[in-house]
This record gives sequence, structure tokens and C-alpha cells, in this order.
Amino acid sequence: MTNPASTATGIRAQALRCRDASRHVARLSSDDKDVLLRAMADALMADADAILEANARDMAQAEAKGIAGAMLDRLKLDPARLQGIAEALRLVAALPDPVGQVTRSEVRPNGIRIERVRVPLGVVAMVYEARPNVTADAAALCLKAGNGVILRGGSEALHSNAAIASALRRALREHGLPEDALVLLEDLRREAMVELLQLSDVVDLAIPRGGEGLIRFVAEHARVPVITHYKGVCHLYVDASADPALARRLLLDGKVSRPGVCNALETLLVHADIAETFLPAAAEALQAHGVELRGDARSRELVPGIAEADDEDYATEFLDLVLAVRVVQSLDQAIAHIERFGSDHTEVIATRDPANAERFVHALRSAVVMVNASSRFSDGGELGLGAEIGISTTRLHAYGPMGAESLTIEHYVVRGDGQTRNLP
Amino acid sequence: MTNPASTATGIRAQALRCRDASRHVARLSSDDKDVLLRAMADALMADADAILEANARDMAQAEAKGIAGAMLDRLKLDPARLQGIAEALRLVAALPDPVGQVTRSEVRPNGIRIERVRVPLGVVAMVYEARPNVTADAAALCLKAGNGVILRGGSEALHSNAAIASALRRALREHGLPEDALVLLEDLRREAMVELLQLSDVVDLAIPRGGEGLIRFVAEHARVPVITHYKGVCHLYVDASADPALARRLLLDGKVSRPGVCNALETLLVHADIAETFLPAAAEALQAHGVELRGDARSRELVPGIAEADDEDYATEFLDLVLAVRVVQSLDQAIAHIERFGSDHTEVIATRDPANAERFVHALRSAVVMVNASSRFSDGGELGLGAEIGISTTRLHAYGPMGAESLTIEHYVVRGDGQTRNLP
Repeated sequence: MTNPASTATGIRAQALRCRDASRHVARLSSDDKDVLLRAMADALMADADAILEANARDMAQAEAKGIAGAMLDRLKLDPARLQGIAEALRLVAALPDPVGQVTRSEVRPNGIRIERVRVPLGVVAMVYEARPNVTADAAALCLKAGNGVILRGGSEALHSNAAIASALRRALREHGLPEDALVLLEDLRREAMVELLQLSDVVDLAIPRGGEGLIRFVAEHARVPVITHYKGVCHLYVDASADPALARRLLLDGKVSRPGVCNALETLLVHADIAETFLPAAAEALQAHGVELRGDARSRELVPGIAEADDEDYATEFLDLVLAVRVVQSLDQAIAHIERFGSDHTEVIATRDPANAERFVHALRSAVVMVNASSRFSDGGELGLGAEIGISTTRLHAYGPMGAESLTIEHYVVRGDGQTRNLP
Repeated sequence: MTNPASTATGIRAQALRCRDASRHVARLSSDDKDVLLRAMADALMADADAILEANARDMAQAEAKGIAGAMLDRLKLDPARLQGIAEALRLVAALPDPVGQVTRSEVRPNGIRIERVRVPLGVVAMVYEARPNVTADAAALCLKAGNGVILRGGSEALHSNAAIASALRRALREHGLPEDALVLLEDLRREAMVELLQLSDVVDLAIPRGGEGLIRFVAEHARVPVITHYKGVCHLYVDASADPALARRLLLDGKVSRPGVCNALETLLVHADIAETFLPAAAEALQAHGVELRGDARSRELVPGIAEADDEDYATEFLDLVLAVRVVQSLDQAIAHIERFGSDHTEVIATRDPANAERFVHALRSAVVMVNASSRFSDGGELGLGAEIGISTTRLHAYGPMGAESLTIEHYVVRGDGQTRNLP
């Protein structure tokens, strides 16, 4: 590892080293990968002092820059949070290995056996913002799925990310693996990110995670495939047949329990036949939790004093205690509203009518469509993936919460005993 | 369909109409789709005279432009070929419907039932060159999978494509569907293609099919996701333990039976221990079929008179009666050669050693990896897909031959009875 090529710091040189290293990771057994991931958790704890010290430097710089509130909180590490990050690595180690899974098997009439088998994607580039836990989480899921990973974090978390990556890379080395299976880019200029995103012969997938500005930047500059999660404009449609108490629980859980996340509700659609019974009481309950409502004409008749909603409100991911409301004349109108304003993330129907439930489920192609359950379950952990690297609203490859399996692809393995097709 | 918006001919306007129409296709039952596809086959035969006349115009223009040989042959339609195209539509009708398939089902501890269900991608843009059969084949697979399809064919096949699309659109209309579920673009300027490839809010996937120049152009100009098939530099590795007769059959079938297709062999790797027995006789058999060999030093010792192979030969998809040859010292060297020069398409090992077969299969992540079977089976029909829309060497979403299922995506359907996550 001492020749000039192997220590070059150019983006392409680093990505090529990651690709070479990824081939070693791809061939690891499930057990070897799990041992590695647990060793990475141990390495993080062994480096706790250094990591927390690095984080303190990032925090001081962020405060000096005037960063405050939720953003500062996302940046902050403490012993408990670091323990949580290490624990998350151990959880990933305990997940099933998607690599090598045979998803289909068939013997053709000519006797060749065809299997579809999961293999790693290759090299995954994660581009993300301030949370330093993503450095460990994303690396763990990528390695679990047999990939190399190139991490491009935000400048605010520069020292924290470097300290975390240093611990994780040491664990790779100590297991006889090339540490470049995990590359943390130190060059955080936009031009360097663009260079990374253009390496279509090296990087197999880019996943941006962060604000809409970052995601649009990545989508616009990438030549490599990108899976994006733009926003979650999630809807609850309260059908005429809904159990009002059940619908109200879904509404409160969806809007109030954690308004700043992407699976929170942003729009309530209420069937006209139940609006008079449902809406005034529901509005009162929401307002008691500080939720601001913005409604159409009929909603404003039923809930006096709320602001008027315009098309922009219906298209907005508020990420806050604000809810757009609309009274609709039919299930079809609800579906049409969601198709027009939705973001393909998560939609919920509250209904006691099985036929309406099925119509809703079949009409909508959002990543997650729910019947009588809270939108807040639209999450990798809650949906049984164990951990998630993001939530895709790109209708390609992976759609909805993405776990380790989403970082693999099925290829074909064919076994014969000399079959030919048109032997001359 | 008479207001200005619905007849606008701009690329974006046409794509938006296709998206709206795709929602109708997405909701069709399997039976309805199959009836539609068979009606499309009938419509093609009903319009046979018009289609063949249109094709005659394309052929005359192509000949006037000096197009000849294989390219002219690909453009040509005759009654038998048109019958074949109609038959292909009926075969697609008879395939299983991927839409609605439940690929996984699980009840979580809190009682919510989670299913993964296949839904259509939405709008697929096919960008292709001279073969007019692609117009019908691609449309059929896209519609089978519940998608709208935008077709951008080559200028050589302009009239043929228009006549075929006209018949297919009439079948849509006669089944009460918006004909814009199938759009054939008439504006064949490059700028119009670029505009199409930038419609990331409308087009869900672009599939280029044609020469490397077209594919690179699409990949470079697309903002929408692209699945590409660059080239098939397919390898046969003859292991030391191989049955020489079996290996020779795979070699002849792979190289000689149809050298111009992407699953033909381009490079032969032979283990040093078997090279002396295998290579001279194999070379003689190939040369008897007119194959030109280009080899490394050891190959040229064993087969005097053949040209020297350089790195470029090893990276070339000859699509012709040319084969690059190399003697390798080990299975590992064969794998390393394929990793360096391969195109992720199809690789074959001929071996009698099960351990070597498994090492080969596990080490390589090409789309199709075969043991003792001809590379020529790397094809949607041969692998059991019924029909293919292309062969992906992009390690994302679909990898290898792509059938109707590759034109769908799994989303999540969650059914509960009022479950919430953190009800305040």
C-alpha cells in the first residue's frame, strides 16, 4: 500500500481503490462479514474518546457559524449516542445476508438449471449531510451486502466522520481486508462531488440523503445511477365508512408524534359523507397539539377560523405542525388528489369497507400504501428490514424503505452438462 | 381529445398524455391486457398491406442512402416477418402477468400485515434503431407490465414504425383505452430525444437499444434512469479438468452459430495444463468455420500462424468471426482476466471439477454466469422469460435479460386494524 497509485488522493483514484477492495468484500462469507461488523462496533467504542473529541471540534465550529437547534442536535454525539451507533452495527451483523440468496430456480426443457442469485451491486456512493451516525450506518449496510462504500459527508461533521471512518477502516485492516472498501472523501468541494457522481465506470449507485437541495444537486450532476428520496407528502384518506375513532388515532399518530420526519402526514382527505361527524372533532384534537390547519372551502365551513389551503399547500412537505385538509366527494377524487399532489411516499386509507380498501390499494402506486395503519410505520425497521439506508421514491430498483437487500442485484447462474443452442 | 392540450405535439405534452394514459393501463386486469395484446396482433395483420407498403418506402429510401447488408436486412419486413411480429404479441399475451404478484408477505409483532406487491413502473421510453419489430415487441412488454410506452425509433424505419404504431393505437382505442398509452415520437431530431431523456418527472425509465453510439448518447444526456446494455464481451474459460469435447462444443456454438449477437463468445481462456491437448484441435475446428484467432504468446506457440492479441482485442466485442485467445495459469488468473476485460454480460466455465465451478460462479458478478452451457443461452427466451426487452449490463434494477417483470417494481402494501406507532 505504499506505491504512489495506492495512496493517490484524487477522487477517481480513491474510487478505483474502493472498487478493487469491493471485490474482496464481495467474496466474504456471511460469518466473516458479521464478525467484521461486530469488530467495527468494538472499534468505535475503543475510539470513543477520539470520536467524541472530534465531534466536540465539529460542534464548536458549527456553533461559531451560528448553527443551532435541530441541525446542531443532529450533529451532536455523546457516549450514549455513540453506544447507539455501535449497537446499530451489531444489529446489522445479526440481519440475514442477502448475498447468495437464490430467489428463483428452474430447470428448462433442455436440462439447463437456471437460478437467480443475489450478488452485491459493487460500489455504492453515499452523499449525505450533517448526521455522523450515517457514516457508520451506511457503511455497515453496504458492507453487509458485499459492497464497497464511498462516503461523502457534510463539512459540518468533517472531524466526527473522519474519526468514525478511521475506526471502521482499522477494523477492516485488522481482518485482513483492504481498508479502501470504505472510503471517506476528505475533499468536500462541490467539484469533487460532481467528479464522484460522474464515475459511471466505477460507481454502481449513488444514494443522496439530506435536504431537497442536496438531492436535486446529486440528481442533476450524476452520470451514475441515483436512487433518490425527494420528500414525503403523505396522505390520510378518511373514507365515508371509516371508524372515526380509528381514523383519529391514525391522524394524531401520523401528524403529531414526530412531525419532522418524512413518514409524517401532510394532508388529510375526508369523504364528504363523514366530514361533518369527523372533521370538527379531529381538528379540535389536532389543534390541542398545536397543529395549524389549512383547508378547502368545505373544511373551513366545518372548522371555522382555519386558513385557506392552496395548491402549493397540498404539494408541500411541511415537516412541521401544519396539516392541509380537503373534503372530497368520493374515493376516486381522493385518489386523483393523491396522484396529482403526492410524492409517491406513503398513503393511508381509513375504512371499514373492504372493497374501498382494495380499490385504494390497487389504484395507488406509491412506495407504501396502507389500510387502517399509521403512516409512521413507513420505515425500514417497522416494515421488517432491520435497518434502512434510505427511503426511495424513485420507481426503479428499490422503492420505499431500502435495506441490505436493496444494495444487491439478482444475476443468473446457469448450470448444464454441455448444452448448446445451434451447434454448427 | 380535441382540445389543444391533448393534441399538442411537443415532447413534454406527448409524454404527459402518455403518463395519464398509463394510469388506465395500470388498472387493467390481466385478462383485459391479454385481450388487448391479441387484438393488437390482429390489428397488425389487418393493416398488413399498409405496413408492408410503408416498409417498402423505408427500404427504398435506405437503399437510396446506400444502406446495405445486415442493416438493410434488419429493416426489411415481409408477410412472414410481419406474421412473426404478430405472433410475438400473442406470446406476450400468454405470459404470466407480473403486476399484482405478491412477492413477500409477513405479519409483524404488532399485527400489521406487510406485503410486497409488483406494480408497473409508469412510463417507459424505448430509444432504438432500425428494427421495426421493436416497435411492437417493446410496446407489448411495456403494456403487459401495465406501463405507458414512448417509442423513439430510428429515422430509417420512420414509415414502418408509424404504420405499426397506428395499428396498435387503434387496438387501444377500440378497447376503450387512451391511445396515448403508446406514443411513437415523430420528431426524430436529437434535441427532441434529449428533451425526452430529461423529463425526469414524467418518464420512469429509458431503455436504449442499438449500437454503442446510441447507448452512450442516451446515457450521457439522460436525467431519467437508464438501463443500458453496452456490449457483450463474453468469455469461455476451459478449466484444466474440462471435458475437451464438451468444451469444444461450447466454443463452436458460442463463436460460430451466430457471431453477430451479444451472447456470442469473444474471448477463449484456456488453462495451461489443458492448452496443449485442447487448443490446437479447437483452433483447427474454429478455423474450419472461418474464425480468425488472435492469441497471447503461449497460444501462438500452440497454434502457429495466428495474430498477436493485445489488450484492445481482449476488450473488444468483435461481433464477427474473430476470437481472442489466452492461456492462463490458473482459475484465479481467468477470473482476474474477466474482471479486467469483461463487460458484465455472460461468462462460461467448462469444467469437471465442482469446486472450480462454484469458485467461478461465486467470484464473478456478470449478469449471467454459466457452468458447462453455451453462452448463447443468455437470452430472455432461453432463460424462461418468454420475451425480452433488452439485456441489462447495468447492475441496478434488472441485470441480464429483461422480461415483463423487469418493467415492474415492488411496493409495500400494509394492512392493519388501527395500529399506531407513538400515539401522543
